[in-house]
This record gives sequence, C-alpha cells and structure tokens, in this order.
Amino acid sequence: MGFIMIGERINGMFKDIGEAVANFDPKPIQYWAQKQKEFGAHYLDVNVGPTSTDRVKSMRWMVEVIQEVCDLPLALDSTNYDAIEAGLEVCKKPAIINSCPCERAKIERVFPMAAKYSAAIVALTMDKKGVPKNADTRVAFAMELVAAADEFGVPTDDLFIDPLILPCNVAQDHAPEVLESLRQIKTLADPAPRTTLGLSNVSQKTPDRELINRTYAAMAICAGLDSAIIDVCDSALVDTIATADILLNKAIYCDSYIKVFKQR
Amino acid sequence: MGFIMIGERINGMFKDIGEAVANFDPKPIQYWAQKQKEFGAHYLDVNVGPTSTDRVKSMRWMVEVIQEVCDLPLALDSTNYDAIEAGLEVCKKPAIINSCPCERAKIERVFPMAAKYSAAIVALTMDKKGVPKNADTRVAFAMELVAAADEFGVPTDDLFIDPLILPCNVAQDHAPEVLESLRQIKTLADPAPRTTLGLSNVSQKTPDRELINRTYAAMAICAGLDSAIIDVCDSALVDTIATADILLNKAIYCDSYIKVFKQR
Repeated sequence: MGFIMIGERINGMFKDIGEAVANFDPKPIQYWAQKQKEFGAHYLDVNVGPTSTDRVKSMRWMVEVIQEVCDLPLALDSTNYDAIEAGLEVCKKPAIINSCPCERAKIERVFPMAAKYSAAIVALTMDKKGVPKNADTRVAFAMELVAAADEFGVPTDDLFIDPLILPCNVAQDHAPEVLESLRQIKTLADPAPRTTLGLSNVSQKTPDRELINRTYAAMAICAGLDSAIIDVCDSALVDTIATADILLNKAIYCDSYIKVFKQR
Repeated sequence: MGFIMIGERINGMFKDIGEAVANFDPKPIQYWAQKQKEFGAHYLDVNVGPTSTDRVKSMRWMVEVIQEVCDLPLALDSTNYDAIEAGLEVCKKPAIINSCPCERAKIERVFPMAAKYSAAIVALTMDKKGVPKNADTRVAFAMELVAAADEFGVPTDDLFIDPLILPCNVAQDHAPEVLESLRQIKTLADPAPRTTLGLSNVSQKTPDRELINRTYAAMAICAGLDSAIIDVCDSALVDTIATADILLNKAIYCDSYIKVFKQR
C-alpha cells in the first residue's frame, strides 16, 4: 500500500472556494477537483470553510458537484458532524471523516457514523486540553483511539491517526516528538492503524515553506506516515513523496516511478 | 551535534583530480578544497584514485597541499593502509580513516592506528563475503565493530559505522534495510557509535539522482544518520540536510538556518 495524498485545496478558507460556497457556484470547486486529480491526489479534502451559513447544506452540495466531474474519494472536513453525515449520505465511494479528537462525546458521535457508512476516520491525538507536548502522551491518545475503533466496529486500518505537527519556528521540539509518535503508533495493533498529518502546518510563517514541507514529509514517511493532507500542486513535494515510497520499497522501482505514483 | 558533511570531490576518480595527482599539480586539489569549504563541507574526503603509482607518496602530498589552503579536517580514503598512515602523519587535525571492513586482519591494522593518531574510523558492516542482504546481519557486524573499538581503545563516538547503501534501481530492498540498520546501530552503545553513508550510491544510474539522494538523506537522518560523504555543491541536498537537522531539533531554528548550518 503506497502513500495516500489528500488534496487540501477545496477549502472555504481559500478565497475562490469561499465565494463559490457562498454563491453555490460549482465552477471553482469542480476546477480544483479535476486539477488536483491531474496532479495525483488520491483523495480530495472538502471543507465548507468559515463563512458558510448552512454547513449541512453546503457540504452536501459540495460533495454532489465534485462527484459530477471527479471520481476520487473524498475526505469530509468539518467540526460539524451533521454536515459530515449529510456529505456521507451522498458520497459514492467510502469517504474519510476529518476529524475526531480523543474526546468521548465526539468519539460516540463519529465512530458509529464511520461504521455505518464504511468511512475511515482521521483521529487526532488530543483532547480538550490541546496538543500534547511529547510522543508518550500522543501515543497514549492513539491507544485510546485504537480501542474506540475496536469498540465501535471500525477496522483498525480505517483509522488514520494524526499526531498533530506544529510549526517548527515556534514549537520546534514537537517535530521530533511527532516522528517518534508515528513510529510507535504503527506498532499499536495488527493490522496497524494508519497515520496522517496536516503537513503544511510544520512550516507556517517560515520563509521557505516548501523546503520544510518536503523534507519533513520524507522524514515522516520514514517514521511511518501513510498519508497526509497536502498541496498536491507542489510538484517538488509530490516527487519527494513518490521517491520516499520507492526508497521504502513500497512500490517497484522503474525510471518513470513518479508518473506511476500519480496515476495509481 | 549536527550533521557532518564530508565533501567527496577530491578523489582521483574525477578526471581533474586524477591528472593533478599524476602530475603533482596542487591547483585542482586546492581549488576543490576551498570550493567545498565555501559550500559548507565539514570534512574533506581525500582519495588518490585508481591511477596513482605510489599511493603512499600521493596521499601524503595531497594532505600537505590541501592543508596549505584549507583548515578543514580530512577523511583519508584508501584501501592501502600505509597510504592512510602516511597521511595521518602529516594531518594537522584529527582525521577520519575511510574505511575498514569487519575483517579481523584489517581491524588489527586500522583500529590501533586510529587510536595512535586520535583518528575516527569509517567502519563498514561487511566482510569478505560482501554487503549483507538485511538489517540484522548489518547490525551484527556493527556490534563486532563496536566491540573492536572498545578492544583497541577507540572511543565509540569516533566510530562512524557505514551500513552500506546500494543503488535503488538494482537492489531496492536494501534501502529500507539500511534505514532499519541505522535505527538499531544508534542503540548499540552509550555513547552511541556514529553513522555514515556514501550517499550517492543509492541513486547510481537513475535519471534523477539528486532527487533520490536528497530524499534518502532526509529519511536516513530521521533514522539516525549522523554524517555522509556527499557532493556538497548540490545545494538542494545541503538545504535538505540542514532542514532535517532543524526538524530533529538538533540546531535552533532561525530564518537563516541554512547559512548557519554551512558556517558551523
């Protein structure tokens, strides 16, 4: 199983998508669905953004207009679980629910919904107190999330555990802790849970974001990262990820391995 | 302790250096010594190359002419240990002996010489039978090399164990085994032995060598690689290595961290 790239671009935080959501204009959303597929995305993240006044209606509409032009599976990204459920109802392929923290009430809402719709879950190693400082605490949350998957009938490999990377310029000590967390999370169950990151967070407000993103991607893949939400139009990043897959022997080397990776 | 870059360019296998060695012309050697220092090398590899007719004399001369223009410490690279000793006799700074396989006769020649000259050793996880197929065998050789360091009074952190990377296009399964070897080698003693690789070997005869080199560098640093023999003029590689150091929290982040890394 090779690395899974979740395209980040269909998010109402971007101006063109925010306006498209407000005006129910499918064009920018469909443009980015098709473009991200061309660049090799395996899933598309779908986030209505902060300006939507009816997130349930907006999410369902976004899923429908994306599916009119693109057959990639979707990652439904919202803190409003009714909006996610509205999206799941119309998804043609098993989706990813993005995301659920390690809080009992949210687990009880999200995990049974995932089981019902055969959806995967991005599960965060944090609770109401925020992001833990070290690997041990992250892994303790991951263990709780693995137990919850078992409790609610979600297959372990439908659990994408996100150990939460912070910007290296303000929270530098977190970067190695997240690498260590990834290593340990992959040992928690058999089959192992999968792992994911919101990769670009590592480089927030640094001068050369793409260099930091792709270097951390290679390191994290070495430590056990299976997927990430990324800018798939950053070709140097995608090339790095495809190469890391080859160097872990997860795909067979050929001279055109980058092309093969994108068309997977 | 940050990553150590050993500049690979002063090697008689390159045409200009081979001719310089043959003609006792110091200029190309001194040019590459100064240029590699400018690009951030921490050590300079020195290899007389395949055409030298008197490797003892050539090595001593190369060390002397490099030291006339450059104060970097040297890695004396030869299978002729008399040539290495001739170089060690004139080195002004503690050098690295490159290299010694895990063979008793060579260990008995090299390790006491290292202790005598306070030199470090690049020690290879192989014997006469060649490069092992898996991590376990590499690590077993590494344990023998750590024991030899103890036996001959070489401090463990003067031992740079090289688990030997092969080209990914013909021996792809070795790449993850070397990563696993690096992880385990760092746990063999306290203080841990250091680790090194002849990095560019991973990409031999592939179309985009620099992409594979820098991606594997980031992954290997994540797994425990402390140093490598590299082309320091490959700026994208050096930028990646400096970034990996930052992301392991081995150097303090600042916006100009790459400049700081090179001037260390």
